[in-house]
Amino acid sequence: MPPHADTRRSPARASQKGQQKGQQTRAAILEAALALASRNGLEGLSIGVLAESTGMSKSGVFAHFGSREELQISVVREYHNKFEEEVFFPAMREPRGLPRLAALFERWVRRVSVEIDSGCLYISGAVEFDDRPGPVRDALAGMVKAWHAALQRAIGLAVEVGHLRPDTDPAQMMFELHGLILALHHDARFLRAEGSLERARAGFRRTLGHYTAPGIDADALTALPGVKNARPLQITPLQRR
Amino acid sequence: MPPHADTRRSPARASQKGQQKGQQTRAAILEAALALASRNGLEGLSIGVLAESTGMSKSGVFAHFGSREELQISVVREYHNKFEEEVFFPAMREPRGLPRLAALFERWVRRVSVEIDSGCLYISGAVEFDDRPGPVRDALAGMVKAWHAALQRAIGLAVEVGHLRPDTDPAQMMFELHGLILALHHDARFLRAEGSLERARAGFRRTLGHYTAPGIDADALTALPGVKNARPLQITPLQRR
Repeated sequence: MPPHADTRRSPARASQKGQQKGQQTRAAILEAALALASRNGLEGLSIGVLAESTGMSKSGVFAHFGSREELQISVVREYHNKFEEEVFFPAMREPRGLPRLAALFERWVRRVSVEIDSGCLYISGAVEFDDRPGPVRDALAGMVKAWHAALQRAIGLAVEVGHLRPDTDPAQMMFELHGLILALHHDARFLRAEGSLERARAGFRRTLGHYTAPGIDADALTALPGVKNARPLQITPLQRR
Repeated sequence: MPPHADTRRSPARASQKGQQKGQQTRAAILEAALALASRNGLEGLSIGVLAESTGMSKSGVFAHFGSREELQISVVREYHNKFEEEVFFPAMREPRGLPRLAALFERWVRRVSVEIDSGCLYISGAVEFDDRPGPVRDALAGMVKAWHAALQRAIGLAVEVGHLRPDTDPAQMMFELHGLILALHHDARFLRAEGSLERARAGFRRTLGHYTAPGIDADALTALPGVKNARPLQITPLQRR
């Protein structure tokens, strides 16, 4: 590229720069919105509150998200992307069967653990929107269903490769694993109960114990690097803020 | 009692009648408040909203509940009383061991099923108040803990009478059963998924299958009258209201 191409400010480049800056601003607003929604719920989110917390003008925020609903849906999508990055994609690099299934569960557990102080948008959103039909609920339910379907596929593959018993009902097993995650979120976040992370993991091992095919060494197949050394969940007592 | 005692309006009797009427009014307000809280959450409850929905004056409602907080706590207590009446007390009449434990779980499942269209105050309250310290959260957490402790005692008794394996960890088993209830509430209420009730029951049987002591016929001990004929959970599609 000739040197002058770097320095001259062509209209195309200026517009490209503007677009880049716009995207950065949008990402910054979205991050603040996600933090707000995790704390106060999706319904606690509004263009006004967000403008205040980012130090922007209402019209500035409005330029990026045309409505409160669009803002809420964008936050749900952003959460979903982060969830996929942290839980889904890394676990998919594990071999099919129990290694992948254990990685999915362990990463899910860790994700919920990290969220003890902020709250999981999927879980709180489900309660917030369970009787509020509309596009936000649809977006939320769609993403929760997509995640459940992915987990169910991983269970199905574990049956196919012979790690789980052939009569395993993937939807039933998924229901039970999801229950462990919900109980973890409830006990650690609401009751601030110590040992919840260990209970969720023990529940997973017990569930596997039932569904694992005869002759398969589940412990060996699910010995994830780093799991044994993972720090225990730190539950800080809830302070009056 | 002499007949005139029935008809004359002594000041004491008038005051007693007034007290009775006051209690009836309070009970009526509380019922409306419970319905409102189940729909809109405890945080959706206010003296103003309640006055509107009962057709009373704000000062009339205020005379019975001195503050919004007192109102919220009274609603939590009322919910707890109903929960005990429907789930806890009838199950306690079953013999110790698996019959009582199965009755507790089945009645809990049914209670959540009935609430599919209104929501369980314990579950929604946990999400609403998980990061809002104060007397309402304390009341809610106290009652959830009391219920969990009762369930854990029932599990402990089932170990004592030899129905469950001696190495059963009651807190762990309770965690797993609670997870099934949370998954039922989530799937039936938020995802409107068919078959959730059956999944929760299948999960219970599978969990029992693991913890039941050798030689104990769990099916025979948990064959509750009416369970097999219980109507399946009707999940109505969520209408736009």
